[in-house]
Amino acid sequence: MLHKIINLTVRDVRFPTSLEQHGSDAMHTDPDYSAAYVLLHTDCGLTGFGLTFTLGKGTEIVVCAVEALAPLVIGKTLEEIVSDFRGFYRLLTSDGQMRWLGPEKGVIQLATAAVLNAVWDLWARAEGKPLWKLLADMDPKQIVSCIDFRYITDVLTEEEALDLLLKAQEGKQQREDQMLREGYPAYTTSCAWLGYPDQQLKQLCTDALKTGWSRFKVKVGADLEDDIRRCRLIREMIGPNNTLMIDANQRWDVADAISWVRSLAEFKPLWIEEPTSPDDILGHAAISKCHNRVMFKQFLQASALQFVQIDSCRLGSVNENLAVLLMAHKFKVPVCPHAGGVGLCELVQHLILFDYICVSADLSNRMCEYVDHLHEHFTCPVVIRDAHYIPPKAAGYSCEMLEASVQRHRYPDGDVWKSLHMKK
Amino acid sequence: MLHKIINLTVRDVRFPTSLEQHGSDAMHTDPDYSAAYVLLHTDCGLTGFGLTFTLGKGTEIVVCAVEALAPLVIGKTLEEIVSDFRGFYRLLTSDGQMRWLGPEKGVIQLATAAVLNAVWDLWARAEGKPLWKLLADMDPKQIVSCIDFRYITDVLTEEEALDLLLKAQEGKQQREDQMLREGYPAYTTSCAWLGYPDQQLKQLCTDALKTGWSRFKVKVGADLEDDIRRCRLIREMIGPNNTLMIDANQRWDVADAISWVRSLAEFKPLWIEEPTSPDDILGHAAISKCHNRVMFKQFLQASALQFVQIDSCRLGSVNENLAVLLMAHKFKVPVCPHAGGVGLCELVQHLILFDYICVSADLSNRMCEYVDHLHEHFTCPVVIRDAHYIPPKAAGYSCEMLEASVQRHRYPDGDVWKSLHMKK
Repeated sequence: MLHKIINLTVRDVRFPTSLEQHGSDAMHTDPDYSAAYVLLHTDCGLTGFGLTFTLGKGTEIVVCAVEALAPLVIGKTLEEIVSDFRGFYRLLTSDGQMRWLGPEKGVIQLATAAVLNAVWDLWARAEGKPLWKLLADMDPKQIVSCIDFRYITDVLTEEEALDLLLKAQEGKQQREDQMLREGYPAYTTSCAWLGYPDQQLKQLCTDALKTGWSRFKVKVGADLEDDIRRCRLIREMIGPNNTLMIDANQRWDVADAISWVRSLAEFKPLWIEEPTSPDDILGHAAISKCHNRVMFKQFLQASALQFVQIDSCRLGSVNENLAVLLMAHKFKVPVCPHAGGVGLCELVQHLILFDYICVSADLSNRMCEYVDHLHEHFTCPVVIRDAHYIPPKAAGYSCEMLEASVQRHRYPDGDVWKSLHMKK
Repeated sequence: MLHKIINLTVRDVRFPTSLEQHGSDAMHTDPDYSAAYVLLHTDCGLTGFGLTFTLGKGTEIVVCAVEALAPLVIGKTLEEIVSDFRGFYRLLTSDGQMRWLGPEKGVIQLATAAVLNAVWDLWARAEGKPLWKLLADMDPKQIVSCIDFRYITDVLTEEEALDLLLKAQEGKQQREDQMLREGYPAYTTSCAWLGYPDQQLKQLCTDALKTGWSRFKVKVGADLEDDIRRCRLIREMIGPNNTLMIDANQRWDVADAISWVRSLAEFKPLWIEEPTSPDDILGHAAISKCHNRVMFKQFLQASALQFVQIDSCRLGSVNENLAVLLMAHKFKVPVCPHAGGVGLCELVQHLILFDYICVSADLSNRMCEYVDHLHEHFTCPVVIRDAHYIPPKAAGYSCEMLEASVQRHRYPDGDVWKSLHMKK
């Protein structure tokens, strides 16, 4: 079967999370977790599902960008795409007219991620495997054939990437078995959003400790006195041996970051996330979400991060994340994926499982973010057991949403939004 | 008068330049020079005109992004905006939901530029001055109040910026007089687009030399043998004393760039433009167009460029360009603006005139790009005399287009596009 893609549909799906301050941080005070949600329809009846995550307003711009990419996808067969996946990646990211709008950054890269996530989902479904297993079973040569090495060959060549993957073959089966048995370690961001009052933070922390969580992230950056109080509170709750991370969501200039972090040092955070602009390599972010492999490359070259935070929806899908995982491995920097939002946990678990099984073979100082939100809208939501991600078994990339959820949350005409607008 | 903005309209205007290979380079082989064209309508009948430049496909995405920004602008008065222009800039670039789509890069930054360009045009018209003169007459305190210093204070603080501007007040009037008399030096990119055959290149070069041009830019990067032949040809035509620049438009990886440029060194180019990814600070671009002030800051910090190339439509309008002009001055790096496209020459001439009169006070190794295309569609097209930009006299930012041109080139329903689609 060729799986010819005969149509692409995209929808603007928004959840009114700002009503309860879920997801609030120093720069994003009222996010409505949202997605540009893509379906690839094939002639054989199989559908590929993909999405990219957004914060509400402006999702329609990403939808518009997905529609602009659609003609590059419709009419192609899955076989055609995956037999030259690097070429297809470049077709989407290097179109002579559209690359002006990026290149490989912002709206157009988010749209590229949504479309390619759907292609990867379709591929995994066609093979009857969850995505992580498709990747883990894949020949290293085929894996590197999915990566666009443009602009990173000064740090990682195709030959070197292949070599890294071949070396990591040893022990692969044991690591896969271990993952199926124990899952991948996670940390939680659900307890300490910036907009939560102290009482709520305390309650959530208590509950989390009871269910086995030992690693916690706190949002900071709006007000130093508040941050000190909140960090003290959470450190007291979790005790000296559990792990605490802080996240400033790009709030500070370089000098602010240094003095602010000094004031919070007594609470012993493992990392400071996004202290300043995500573009500021030389500003020495300690951990960063970057928008493409060229930015990650330099953060690694400049020793400007101590942890790499990949994102399933900001980078150019699996293809670009593969490049980043390999570069992080080469520089011996642990990968701790960004998740949360809508579907980010569902997606990124596949990538980090692959990373452990086939690239890094290492769990020390590694963990995947987890946020307990909106999973109920997915047909195969993540499974967390004992603060670990349990590998998904269903075929695909886990980003199919329940059709009823999509219908209710469609913006602006889903029932949820119609009734909210009526209340105003 | 308060100049209340009562409506914003935006149109997708495209010129079929790809038919004749105008604007073609190693990465953009078939550009249709286009614009998202913004009109701000006020209650007093005055209109502000702004645009951002695009390459055809995807312009509708920028239009969609402008529409998403419109609610932040409509209802405000010009006085309200300019009395806290930094705050207004931040309102557009740091909206809690929309900044996820950038921040300050790609589609959303292009849309921000189009909207803010229209605001600056409106301001200049309200004052009855061309934009460069509005800026040149402005109190240094008010100039710095337009700049968002977030993420750049480690290199340039508000106090330092003010100090630089105050120091440059000396001799201002003489420089303004000099500009009105002689104009600002320009170089031409019109002779050597990548898609032009040698004969055309020769003819254009001969004509340009006759009309006083002495500085020429050649597009390179697709094929080394071709590049050598074309550079040799043009160097022979212009002789050893005129200036040659080469532009690879992001075609190379770092190693390719080094070896390729070595092969072209015998033709003595003054600079190598965009040898690699515009995100690759550590890849040592020699000259670069960046997407925001944070990227420019680092290129300067890392001594990774020897010339700064500002852009009137990729950065966040005049506000963000002011920050970059001041940083370039601090680092003593000459500014040579990017122009061409649709309206880029019309816009950027204002910025570089201001730079000479009020910031750098220096012309050595400085020149502004010029491309002889599409000026006929503007109500106040640039005036070039003896390869110099002559300061515009009409009030505003020179980006108003002829309504008939806009109508004919509207995509997809203008007459030009309707007849092209019929031919297919």
